Amino acid sequence: MKPIDFWYSIGSTYSYLTVMRLPEYAAQQGVVFNWRPFDVRAIMTEQNNIPFAHKPAKSSHMWRDIERRAGKYGLPIKVPVPYPLEELVFANQVALLGMREGWGQDYTVEAYRMWFTEGKKAGTEANVSECLKRIGQDPVRVIKLAHSPEIASALVDETTHCRELGIFGAPSFVVDGEVFWGNDRLEDAVSWRKNGCVR
Amino acid sequence: MKPIDFWYSIGSTYSYLTVMRLPEYAAQQGVVFNWRPFDVRAIMTEQNNIPFAHKPAKSSHMWRDIERRAGKYGLPIKVPVPYPLEELVFANQVALLGMREGWGQDYTVEAYRMWFTEGKKAGTEANVSECLKRIGQDPVRVIKLAHSPEIASALVDETTHCRELGIFGAPSFVVDGEVFWGNDRLEDAVSWRKNGCVR
Repeated sequence: MKPIDFWYSIGSTYSYLTVMRLPEYAAQQGVVFNWRPFDVRAIMTEQNNIPFAHKPAKSSHMWRDIERRAGKYGLPIKVPVPYPLEELVFANQVALLGMREGWGQDYTVEAYRMWFTEGKKAGTEANVSECLKRIGQDPVRVIKLAHSPEIASALVDETTHCRELGIFGAPSFVVDGEVFWGNDRLEDAVSWRKNGCVR
Repeated sequence: MKPIDFWYSIGSTYSYLTVMRLPEYAAQQGVVFNWRPFDVRAIMTEQNNIPFAHKPAKSSHMWRDIERRAGKYGLPIKVPVPYPLEELVFANQVALLGMREGWGQDYTVEAYRMWFTEGKKAGTEANVSECLKRIGQDPVRVIKLAHSPEIASALVDETTHCRELGIFGAPSFVVDGEVFWGNDRLEDAVSWRKNGCVR
């Protein structure tokens, strides 16, 4: 079975629910996911897609909804968490480097755990360092590499690719050109891969 | 078991999926829903919550997603449908009158069926007339009453009540003060009513 592209951005709140349950869910379903970090803020800003800023009723529901769903999935959570992330781009540059080197999923899961259970914003140099230490990576080496023009430009390229696919938010799953947006559509994407329809 | 308030607005696209499956789902689950039409556009406009206008990527996904989900629920559909509805307020005034008189659900279901399978916009006088005839109501009598100051003001009052509950979009389900937004949260709302948590 061909893998499913899992496009995500550390910085997206609902992605907490996906990132934390995806490794186990993927194994259960026998489906491989390509974890592909991108810069969702660049895309949402250019599309004037501003879902939560200055929308108190919608924001308040978002935190409560994520909390209730975390309960459903058995995930620990302490909401609201500090939001938005100033260092969204850097958080995802580290993730992209990690995907190349093989520790990207561990970093992403740990960054979300720190953000959603300890209130430590992803992307700040201190929190990235701590996160990298926890997963056994050398912060000095990684942070230097993640700041390199090559990684910066690779994240821009991935974001360009997202835009071309019609992606407008995170997380998104892409199966044979079909875009499924949101944690709520993980099951639909898997159904599409397996059955060619949503069941 | 206490009923669940089902707040909806004819004019919301995703509500097609809820309106069409709710009668059967409610019976299966043994849960009663109070169908309460309101003016979602008034609330979204004042909250600057404009999810689809001038957002082609997000709009395009919305139609495709509704189509895929209609397939999952076994519902007929021809998308995209004419959108947005100019006569959203009147469409919901008729629904509110219908809820008082006992034919509100039939009207709502038929209005959505006409809109999503025949491309006939809900709320225009011609389409409201046809819809009322199909469900055995007298268009002349109903349209006159639905335009009355009493019904207009009742819809405004319901919308005010929504605002106070923290509702920001449609459909929304409210269970003991918990707001669940979206067709995707129907099952969560039922779980909350039955178990006091989302399972």
